[in-house]
Amino acid sequence: MIKIGIVGGTGYGAVELLRILTQHPHVDEINIYSNSKAGDKISDSYPHLDAIANIEMKTLSVAEAKTNDVLFFATPPGVSHQWIPKLYGTGVKLIDLSGDFRLLDREVYASWYKQATTEKEWLEKAVYGLSEVYTEAISEAEIVANPGCYPTATLLGLLPAIEGKIIDPSSIIVDGKTGVSGAGRSVSLNTHYAEMNENFKVYQVGTHKHTPEIERFLSDKAEADVVISFTPHIVPMTRGIMTTSYTQIMTNHTEQEIEDFYRAYYEHQPFVRIRTNGNLPQTKEVYGSNYCDISITVDQRTGRLIIIAVIDNLMKGAAGQAVQNMNIINGWDQTTGLSFIPTYP
Amino acid sequence: MIKIGIVGGTGYGAVELLRILTQHPHVDEINIYSNSKAGDKISDSYPHLDAIANIEMKTLSVAEAKTNDVLFFATPPGVSHQWIPKLYGTGVKLIDLSGDFRLLDREVYASWYKQATTEKEWLEKAVYGLSEVYTEAISEAEIVANPGCYPTATLLGLLPAIEGKIIDPSSIIVDGKTGVSGAGRSVSLNTHYAEMNENFKVYQVGTHKHTPEIERFLSDKAEADVVISFTPHIVPMTRGIMTTSYTQIMTNHTEQEIEDFYRAYYEHQPFVRIRTNGNLPQTKEVYGSNYCDISITVDQRTGRLIIIAVIDNLMKGAAGQAVQNMNIINGWDQTTGLSFIPTYP
Amino acid sequence: MIKIGIVGGTGYGAVELLRILTQHPHVDEINIYSNSKAGDKISDSYPHLDAIANIEMKTLSVAEAKTNDVLFFATPPGVSHQWIPKLYGTGVKLIDLSGDFRLLDREVYASWYKQATTEKEWLEKAVYGLSEVYTEAISEAEIVANPGCYPTATLLGLLPAIEGKIIDPSSIIVDGKTGVSGAGRSVSLNTHYAEMNENFKVYQVGTHKHTPEIERFLSDKAEADVVISFTPHIVPMTRGIMTTSYTQIMTNHTEQEIEDFYRAYYEHQPFVRIRTNGNLPQTKEVYGSNYCDISITVDQRTGRLIIIAVIDNLMKGAAGQAVQNMNIINGWDQTTGLSFIPTYP
Amino acid sequence: MIKIGIVGGTGYGAVELLRILTQHPHVDEINIYSNSKAGDKISDSYPHLDAIANIEMKTLSVAEAKTNDVLFFATPPGVSHQWIPKLYGTGVKLIDLSGDFRLLDREVYASWYKQATTEKEWLEKAVYGLSEVYTEAISEAEIVANPGCYPTATLLGLLPAIEGKIIDPSSIIVDGKTGVSGAGRSVSLNTHYAEMNENFKVYQVGTHKHTPEIERFLSDKAEADVVISFTPHIVPMTRGIMTTSYTQIMTNHTEQEIEDFYRAYYEHQPFVRIRTNGNLPQTKEVYGSNYCDISITVDQRTGRLIIIAVIDNLMKGAAGQAVQNMNIINGWDQTTGLSFIPTYP
Repeated sequence: MIKIGIVGGTGYGAVELLRILTQHPHVDEINIYSNSKAGDKISDSYPHLDAIANIEMKTLSVAEAKTNDVLFFATPPGVSHQWIPKLYGTGVKLIDLSGDFRLLDREVYASWYKQATTEKEWLEKAVYGLSEVYTEAISEAEIVANPGCYPTATLLGLLPAIEGKIIDPSSIIVDGKTGVSGAGRSVSLNTHYAEMNENFKVYQVGTHKHTPEIERFLSDKAEADVVISFTPHIVPMTRGIMTTSYTQIMTNHTEQEIEDFYRAYYEHQPFVRIRTNGNLPQTKEVYGSNYCDISITVDQRTGRLIIIAVIDNLMKGAAGQAVQNMNIINGWDQTTGLSFIPTYP
Repeated sequence: MIKIGIVGGTGYGAVELLRILTQHPHVDEINIYSNSKAGDKISDSYPHLDAIANIEMKTLSVAEAKTNDVLFFATPPGVSHQWIPKLYGTGVKLIDLSGDFRLLDREVYASWYKQATTEKEWLEKAVYGLSEVYTEAISEAEIVANPGCYPTATLLGLLPAIEGKIIDPSSIIVDGKTGVSGAGRSVSLNTHYAEMNENFKVYQVGTHKHTPEIERFLSDKAEADVVISFTPHIVPMTRGIMTTSYTQIMTNHTEQEIEDFYRAYYEHQPFVRIRTNGNLPQTKEVYGSNYCDISITVDQRTGRLIIIAVIDNLMKGAAGQAVQNMNIINGWDQTTGLSFIPTYP
Repeated sequence: MIKIGIVGGTGYGAVELLRILTQHPHVDEINIYSNSKAGDKISDSYPHLDAIANIEMKTLSVAEAKTNDVLFFATPPGVSHQWIPKLYGTGVKLIDLSGDFRLLDREVYASWYKQATTEKEWLEKAVYGLSEVYTEAISEAEIVANPGCYPTATLLGLLPAIEGKIIDPSSIIVDGKTGVSGAGRSVSLNTHYAEMNENFKVYQVGTHKHTPEIERFLSDKAEADVVISFTPHIVPMTRGIMTTSYTQIMTNHTEQEIEDFYRAYYEHQPFVRIRTNGNLPQTKEVYGSNYCDISITVDQRTGRLIIIAVIDNLMKGAAGQAVQNMNIINGWDQTTGLSFIPTYP
Repeated sequence: MIKIGIVGGTGYGAVELLRILTQHPHVDEINIYSNSKAGDKISDSYPHLDAIANIEMKTLSVAEAKTNDVLFFATPPGVSHQWIPKLYGTGVKLIDLSGDFRLLDREVYASWYKQATTEKEWLEKAVYGLSEVYTEAISEAEIVANPGCYPTATLLGLLPAIEGKIIDPSSIIVDGKTGVSGAGRSVSLNTHYAEMNENFKVYQVGTHKHTPEIERFLSDKAEADVVISFTPHIVPMTRGIMTTSYTQIMTNHTEQEIEDFYRAYYEHQPFVRIRTNGNLPQTKEVYGSNYCDISITVDQRTGRLIIIAVIDNLMKGAAGQAVQNMNIINGWDQTTGLSFIPTYP
């Protein structure tokens, strides 16, 4: 049994971690850290947790942090990079749900995030936590840079085609759609119910900070510099992400062959499901679960391969994958404590 | 042609007034007053108004206010009562969409609104703007206290039964349901999309400030002190109010007779529609329009008359009724500039 | 380990049972019966179950039914009463999620359901499955009449006040609100997205078939014939029920005393949570879980006690409570396999 | 004053035509034709039209059809092509909201629509009703093929860039998103509330029947055969379409220059609004109106021009544009009877 800590107590990432970890069979103690709400119970902010997790939140300190076996940072950009160097080497496994350790280049980080992160030496120590792809490295990591929500869906959808040299890496266009919970719990006019309901929006065309993250790991597997177009949209629903990726096919493979290749690629991965027979995934079909459902379509008229991937942005796109990585680090089955069946309808 | 002014420029009430008044056949100039955004165009805050109302907002002053023929206050409680005494008698017709002039008793106002309004001498000068019921008085008013959204639906539903002595006034229970736009444009956790979507809430059980307003005008027509239970709920939708009123029948009238009585009561009222044949109203059936649709049901088993009324909270519940009152004051047909057909679906 | 069967394979009740039972620690085999879809896999109708429950559905027969330890009927009214008499006494525990066995009087059933159910002798053998209230009887039952969704919330909210003689049983008015999934998976114009979205509806005023069910069990505990007003409404959301019950107080108890009485009443019930300090429940706070959250408010002005109760209609209002009853019958802890934390946001 | 007829009485297209035409200043009589509901009033099917349009529907015949000045077909594919040849030349102006006359080639129609349309000689007589682009031809048309919803947004967004030779026509990828009302009033599991709410779907990847319509008119202006990728998605909201178009830039124009070119292109078009300063359109900003709002973004990193266009699918995407075309045909100002301000919020 292990002891875990969650930094960033009252955000949606933390609350989703709680939904998973309070019932994880190998976790027997949970600490929640929130500087702004230290002393309050998490159930004061979230009445749905009453009788489940009436945990009093604490102030984070290095001494306090070190008492945990695993520490999750469910914090906005700019926080974790201040703590992680101080905790590295103390034996605490550090899983960062923010973007601070996802890029290798401080300049690139600064230009997309409009703020600073830590030194390259620290960035290099982090392993990218795309569980299905970097499993080996994650199992030995002290710092896991847990992937962004859009990159998770996009990369799981594209990497088989990249690694299989099925598509032209220079042709990739990703059209992303997210539910509103991705914007977090901080109130704003953009997420004001009366303005977001019965509305569909596009934002940050070509400038979203997940773009360099996607490009970094596409480039890694393409063994070449990949530049993509990425356009995020926001859907009037709470949870769910779909990415629609447009790519140019470079081979003569049939749709069936490519589908088989994808299925083989993810053969031993319990959380990736490849759709068959033209069946297309919907975000609700993974709601509340850690699944990533993927379909591939060959459009003969245009020579394009169109890849659809869906996830629950708070689960596989954040807290679920973070726990999956905790399982990998500890040598447990990936699905331990994560067998959530999609809530449908 | 007249010149109108709107105080409280960037709220939903003001914007709904603009939607109506920019096409009103007797209005040829519109001024918008907003102290916090003076100098900005309203279309900067509301891009949907681009090319329709690129009006620069101004700071309100008494001199400025007096240049209008009609001045609407689409302001939070506590603003209009500071201006209206200064403008009274200058010839400007004053229509207040806030609650400042709806109650006759300052103490009652203070106990429900938790803040102060003006002196009783001023409160007495205001006419309650329930257009169908106080038409005569409105036509001669200088100050109109435009009704609240819940009171509009509740009173239009209950007053015929009260005036017809069909129900026991001491038995009234009103269960109200509103769309989220009723909470205005100020952001809050309550109206944060991820918390309000796929959620149904109850609030202010027995303490909502529209309660004394409803009781005042029920008492007026019952010629007795009426005390009611009123419980508001919030529905995950943008627009629409339904009130479900439970009352004890005091007579032997059949459902058909009561329905006929209601139809006769509103015979010359273009915006009230009485449902027939057990057909029950839905909020969407009045969406974007100034209608109030009403059904009455006699429950023989319990001896109760159950009255359902629906309105669009921003139209008949606010801006629409305000313009209806402007029409009455000016001697125009009530429907002038208000013939919005419900947007369906 | 036991073997269970689900009749009514492709409805929402069956699918929610599957969400629970595929991970129940004491269930090792699940049969799904659907006459219309026998031979198909449940995952053909519900792709979200792919890789989770690719179970082939079968045709129901008495011989087949008897191979199960527990058989759930997740069927429309009029089905279970044809099967249950044939299966009674064979050792299979029968849990009926439909209304066929909830009323004791065939005439009453016929007048509200507009169809027939079985003979009184069979109706008398069924135990009403309101888990918290009829626990003893359920533990020995062969037939469980699993409660309706509205009755579950209403009765859990009202019974303490009835049993404590706090309220006048003749004064009860229940205003119910449900999410759309309560209408099931059969398509209709009422549940067509474009007509139900951004809409709030009332239906079956005074004629809903859950009314006699509520009255039967209120009468049982009041030891007198109780007649209520019940008005159901439909909310543009998928899951969730709130009931707002208005009652006349008969005692001088304070709000705090009544709240304490409620808390004591449910002291050993893990799925009922009583709210404190004026905190009011929201449907989302029980989303996907088996909780029933209850608040009580004393309105001094009117002498009324207003009781709010929320549940997830598919969980505590159907499948969750059915499994809770299975646990009680088998002598397992009530929460076995039911520790779903509300999905929030 | 003219007399108009609407064929396809109870669909959403017909009802939206009614919302516009009952208040059109040059229309004094409206006939509604519905074979399945002849004899019923339209307000029986749509209670929101009570007291507004209690029009009795009739059976369509050639003799009956000819009594109108303008006849709108708001019918599914496969109906209008059976009537229009019989009515051609009788003086009735024929505006077809279905796809029957939008393609010039019967084979292409058959392969995408999976059913037949009429002979080429008749198809050639129809003018494509994209009001802003084919204004001259529409003004003299007897048959108008009113554009599809997706093609309207897509073409208004792309044609300036095509005509200005700003983009490579072979590079076009269109990612479309629509509200659910686009699927019409016929009930189906796809549009069942509980399955569509809190869900985001993709459908008909590369096979949607609007694809050849978009390609036809892009080709027309590119003076070359244009083949595109078009992928439609469905958003959990009732109204609204957004198309996100990805294109390769062929020139050295700056974003500002391209934006200026767009603004000049639509200078005299009252219903097209070009966004400035990086402001991006949202579907709600055109809700219930006939506007098409467009933004253009140059992505320097990829050399792409990304064009966003939003419309209300039932207005500019169907009934609104049909009335705009009626205005053009009759020589009235395009905006006559169409000055609907977006309903916001």
